[in-house]
This record gives sequence, structure tokens and C-alpha cells, in this order.
Amino acid sequence: MTAEPIRITGARITPVAFADPPLLNTVGVHQPYALRAIVQLDTDAGLVGLGETYADTRHLARLEAAAEAITGLDAFALNAIRAAIADRLRGDDAAVGTAGMITTASAVDQVLSPFEVACLDVQGHATGRPVSDLLGGKVRDAVPFSAYLFYKWAAHPGREPDSWGEALDPVGIVAQATRMIDEYGFTAIKLKGGVFPPDEEMRAIEALRQAFPDHPLRLDPNAAWTPQTSVKVAAGLAGILEYLEDPTPGIEGMAEVAAQSPMPLATNMCVVAFEQLAPAVAAGSVGVVLSDHHYWGGLYRSRLLAGICDTFGLGLSMHSNSHLGISLAAMVHLAGATPNLTYACDTHWPWKTEDVVKPGVLSIRDGAVAVPTTSGLGVEIDDDALAALHEQYVTCGIRDRDDTGYMQSIDPTFQAASPRW
Amino acid sequence: MTAEPIRITGARITPVAFADPPLLNTVGVHQPYALRAIVQLDTDAGLVGLGETYADTRHLARLEAAAEAITGLDAFALNAIRAAIADRLRGDDAAVGTAGMITTASAVDQVLSPFEVACLDVQGHATGRPVSDLLGGKVRDAVPFSAYLFYKWAAHPGREPDSWGEALDPVGIVAQATRMIDEYGFTAIKLKGGVFPPDEEMRAIEALRQAFPDHPLRLDPNAAWTPQTSVKVAAGLAGILEYLEDPTPGIEGMAEVAAQSPMPLATNMCVVAFEQLAPAVAAGSVGVVLSDHHYWGGLYRSRLLAGICDTFGLGLSMHSNSHLGISLAAMVHLAGATPNLTYACDTHWPWKTEDVVKPGVLSIRDGAVAVPTTSGLGVEIDDDALAALHEQYVTCGIRDRDDTGYMQSIDPTFQAASPRW
Repeated sequence: MTAEPIRITGARITPVAFADPPLLNTVGVHQPYALRAIVQLDTDAGLVGLGETYADTRHLARLEAAAEAITGLDAFALNAIRAAIADRLRGDDAAVGTAGMITTASAVDQVLSPFEVACLDVQGHATGRPVSDLLGGKVRDAVPFSAYLFYKWAAHPGREPDSWGEALDPVGIVAQATRMIDEYGFTAIKLKGGVFPPDEEMRAIEALRQAFPDHPLRLDPNAAWTPQTSVKVAAGLAGILEYLEDPTPGIEGMAEVAAQSPMPLATNMCVVAFEQLAPAVAAGSVGVVLSDHHYWGGLYRSRLLAGICDTFGLGLSMHSNSHLGISLAAMVHLAGATPNLTYACDTHWPWKTEDVVKPGVLSIRDGAVAVPTTSGLGVEIDDDALAALHEQYVTCGIRDRDDTGYMQSIDPTFQAASPRW
Repeated sequence: MTAEPIRITGARITPVAFADPPLLNTVGVHQPYALRAIVQLDTDAGLVGLGETYADTRHLARLEAAAEAITGLDAFALNAIRAAIADRLRGDDAAVGTAGMITTASAVDQVLSPFEVACLDVQGHATGRPVSDLLGGKVRDAVPFSAYLFYKWAAHPGREPDSWGEALDPVGIVAQATRMIDEYGFTAIKLKGGVFPPDEEMRAIEALRQAFPDHPLRLDPNAAWTPQTSVKVAAGLAGILEYLEDPTPGIEGMAEVAAQSPMPLATNMCVVAFEQLAPAVAAGSVGVVLSDHHYWGGLYRSRLLAGICDTFGLGLSMHSNSHLGISLAAMVHLAGATPNLTYACDTHWPWKTEDVVKPGVLSIRDGAVAVPTTSGLGVEIDDDALAALHEQYVTCGIRDRDDTGYMQSIDPTFQAASPRW
């Protein structure tokens, strides 16, 4: 009648590197390879759960420590698993830092995330249920994503151009959007800004509005602007943006802009951990939180975040870092089972050409990814692909994401500054 | 690989009545019978899930409508089940009202609750897991409860005295506490107040402190006092109460008292639904929320409430109405799997002499109830007992809880007033 516990016997943590185009942002440019750590969680039932997270050096060490700390626990014991990881990381609670962008996120929740996702994958396989069913069941069959546009170079210096080519002005951005929407059917558009002076980026948004009159638009300068500049841009793009993402740094700065902005402000920078919610709500800093299970502690805690947003009148959308198929599957199960996740989610998916999961399950059609209906996350590791991307990690030489350092290796005068304008 | 959905085929909703002593509160006195509705949720897999809730006339009608609305849905589809119930109740969103005490609670969440619990019971049976495992796993093997003391008469008028006898002054209250702690080992004590002028109730608390120097103490007058009176009582009981529960009505009144109170204020009256959390947090009305899955929409949503309390720096304890074994099992699974539920929970358990579940699973030892470890809630219906308590419902004549009306049938001069003093 009562099932045996499914004991975790260990985790295989494999850092991988996959080719990444030279996507520009306010702190620099994406390196030729993006790093991820693939977690394969082993259990005494023979079931393997999958998770995916960052692979920076310090984070990898924490993942190894966490894997050891949770060995022996039941894959259903998510509360105990979080407590064990928090215990193990006590005194080591500084943030991982991914390109300096989410440096205040909780290290415990960042480390917990891939293990929690892997446990839910195990639970799904053990019960024959897709992960979405373990989150209350899907409320939509497919999850809409946005076309995630970047200013970019044609090629990494010294390398072959990628298929997307250069995009450094409104014409290039509109061309990029056109191809992306033609290929994937996206129904919303996000532009990563903070690269050029705000006036130029406003012109790009205006060009997108002209080319795509019905697509909701978003602009994300990653806190590149002062509150004053932010207010000016917000006024200039009134009626054009569905939300303006992280125009300026900090809870106070965002509150100052929010009070004068005609559209909601969204964030994946000033509110990236549970302890930042109360001050941000009190200050009225944000209208939309960009959820990200990689730093909000996995799917259960992301659902808590969703419930908090619902309760406190905040909108909810979803942030993306460069990721592979395990993360996309997790994002889709989560978003599929979150009633108030009504904005299209962000994803870097179109920018990658390599993966560690077997193809066929995840694809973007009409701008959306169908929630997998088989058990667990619904994705499987391709062992050869995993080995190849691990080998690429070993040989590529990159060990920590460093958009700024890479940019400075190309342009020694570059300085990351927030705010810049 | 993938399990079939477990379709809900219907629900048997059985109103029951069980003997209840003449427990006094500020709106009157408990009637000779307390009412509950027992939900037996049937599925096409042959698994039956159990739920328990209020049985007032209007609530029963809503339960029947809800059962119809969710028939055909998968027992894992909790999001869809809530949406279906919300749809069905649209335009009928006034509160159920249990003795006028939680009249602002969400009708949707009140109606959802027993079905959600029953679905989790089904999920547990289907997966061989205790419900606590479906909530992230228990973080404690047993859940501590408080000794819940009441001013009371020796007997309902015209009936035989119950075994507890009269308690109308400090001596009676201390005697009641002594017996309750001797029998059950409770390690915390709550006194239901609002019955006598505040000075008398303060003397009862002081007598309890003297008799039980190490037991955390609570006093709950159910909003019987003005803010001024509340501040005076709070000052008088500084260092004695662990929290003061609902001294005065409303979010504003509570905020006024909280600002001057040496101990945290707790509530199961001014914050009883998700939409009341934001204003209460903004006003600083409460320090501790008394969770109750019967009106917070079941166990998933009570866990959301727990996460909100954790995130916004609020304490968390648990409220009780008169209840039977299904509710206690649900409370224990929830509290067992809620890391920040660190106060002893309230329960009316010692006051009842009848039940609908087979005995043996739930008992209070050393003031705590062990979290059941078998699948689902871990409790089974005793069909004969259910039939007997239903027959008692049919014959007892009570159809809606009405502490005030019953009191007025005994003392025609009685008026329920909040605040009274």
C-alpha cells in the first residue's frame, strides 16, 4: 500500500559548453561558449532525474557539496533536501554571480534548483506523471515564448560568422525579428538593450512596432540607465512597450521610475530572491516579476513566487539565461502549470545549435512549446551529445561566464557601468 | 510509462452532526451538535479520497454544485479543479459565514478545500505516498498542538453535564488546563476569551501562568475589544503571552494595536483570504497568521500562505474549528510538511466524543499528533459511524451554525457585539 522511499544514491554533475553567438549586452558580449552543468540524479530505484544549471567554477563546487549532502534522502523529501543544502552551504552564502547580473540571488536556492527539478523528474517517472501534474496540472497545453532579440556582431572575432549575421541598428534588429518570427511564430518580442545610447534603442523599438504592429514589445537594458533616463525612455515608449525591464539598478531606483512610468516595470535583477520581495512590494518597485527557476530554488518555490505575485498584485513573466533542453522542459512544465503566468516567457532557445537532450520533444511552434505529456520532464539525455559538449567544456578553456572580460579582450577600453546613461 | 488520468466520477457529500459541549465565545455558545460535511470523492480508478468541511445549508449546496463541476477532471488537475469551482460559483461569492467569525473568507477557497484534500488523498493512494510527501515531505514526525481552553457551562440547558464540568473563572480554567495537559501532554495553552470582561480573562491567564510557568500562553477574544482595551490588555500581559489573537476587529484596528503591543498579534479573523494579505502586510496589522486549510483553499494553497508568511516575515500558526478525524489528518500532514509552522497548532479535538474515521491512527501524545505514514491522508471512514452521525444530523434539527441564536434562546438579553468592551 505504501511505496518505499526512493533514496538518492548520488548525482553525476557534468559541465558542458555549447556554442553561443556574440550577443551583446550592457556588461559586454556572450563568449563563444555558454556553460551549463547537467545533473543526473541517481536513485536506488534505478530512476534517474535530470536537472540543469550554471556551471561557473564556484557553483560547480557547491553542486558537488550539495549532491553529497542530499545522498540518502528520499526524492520526495524536498523540504529535507533544501534544509540539507542550506546546512551544507552555511557560511558560504555569497551569490554565484552570472555575469554580474543576478549577484544577489540566494546561493541556496540556486544550488537547490537542479536537484529539485531532478527530484520532480524522478517523482514523475515513479508515478507515471508529467512534472506539470506534480505542480497542480497544466492550465495550458503549450507555453508561449517571446522572440528574444539581441544586438550582435556577425561573428566572434577570428571565427566564422553565424547564420544570423550582424544586428547593430534598427534595420538589423527588424531583420533578426523577421527571421525569428518566420521560423518560430513568436507572438511577442523582447529586445536586449543597454548596448547603445537609449535614443538608438528607442528607434529600434519604434522600428519593431512598425514592422510588427500587433506583437507586444519589451525592452531590457539590464539597469543601464539612471532613473532620469529611464523615466524619459518610458515616456517616449508609452503605448508601445507592454513592460520595461530593469531600466535602472536597485529597488529604490526602480521605485522612483515606476512611480512615473506609463507601463509596468519588470525585473529579473532587483528582485531575484525571496527576501527582496517584501522591500520591493513596500516600495512599489516593480509591476512584473520575471521568474526563473534556476535562481528561485526550483519549481515548487517558483510556484510560491507565482502565488506571491498573484497575491500582491504583481504580474509574472519568465526570465531566461542561455540554456539547453532540460531547462526548457522544466520551464515549460512550470509555466504550463502556473495559472497567472500570462505573459510570453523569455528563452535564448533559437540562439543555440547544440543540446544534450534527444531531439523531438521540444520545439517552438506558433511561438509556443507544447508541455510534454510523458512522465517526468519528458526529456532524455543523449549520451553522445552530453559527452561531446563535456569535451567541448574541457577544451574551450572557459570556466566562468565573463561577458565583460571577453569584451575587454576585444575592446580594451570597454567598461561595464550600471547605470551607463 | 505514463499513467492514465484518474477521473473524478462524483462525490458523496454527507452532512454529519457530532455532540459538542457548551463552549462559550464572544458571539454566544456552541450548540449541542457541531456540523461537518464529509466528502467521499469517487474516481474511475476505484480510489476514494476523503475531505471534511463545514455543513451549513448554503455551503452544502455549493459543495454539491462543485462536485458536479469537477466530475470528469483528473484528480491531479488541481489547477483545473479550482478553476472549475470558481467558474461554477461565479456570482455566488459571498462568504459562507461560520458563526459570523470568518465571513470575509473566499467562498471559492472554502468550497475547493475538501475536494482538494480528497484529491491529494487519491493522489497519495495512487502513488503509495502519504499526503505529506505530496507537500514536499514532512519536516517533523509529530505536530504539536495546544491545549484549547474554553469558558463553559457544566451542561447544555436541559441535558446531562459533560465530563469536563463548568469553567467560568480562573480556578475552573486552570482545572480544565490541568486535566487536558494530564491527558494529552500539551506543551502550549490557548484560552478562548471574549466571554467575560477583559480584567477577568487577564486573571485567568495569570492563573495559568502561575500553574504552568513554562507553557507558552495565548488568549483569543475574537475581536471583542476596542483598540484601546486591546492595548491595555496587551500591556498587562506583556511577557506572559506568546501572542495575542484577534483582540480587535479589522485590519486597521489590528494595526493600531499591533503598533503598541509588546507581543505579536495573531489572526484568523482579519486575514482569512489571500486578498487580505497585501493590505494587512502594508498596515502591519498582524505578526502571526493562523492558517486553516478549510478556508485557505486546501493544502497546496495553505502551503502558499506559509511561503508568503515566511517571505514577509510573518509567523505562522494554525486555527481550528470543531472538526473530526479527516480534518485532523489533513492538518497534521500540512503542518508536518511546513517548515515555518513552528507554533503549536490549535485543535478542538479533546472536546469531541464521536468521529467518522476508524480509531487508532490519530492520537495526541506528548501534546503532538504523529504524521500518518501510510498512503494518502492515512485515515479510513467507519461506515457505521458515518451513518450514525448522519442520522444525528438528520434528527438534531441544526442546519446552520448559530452560536448567537442558541445563546439568545437561553438568555434573550444576549447581544453579539464586536467590539464588546
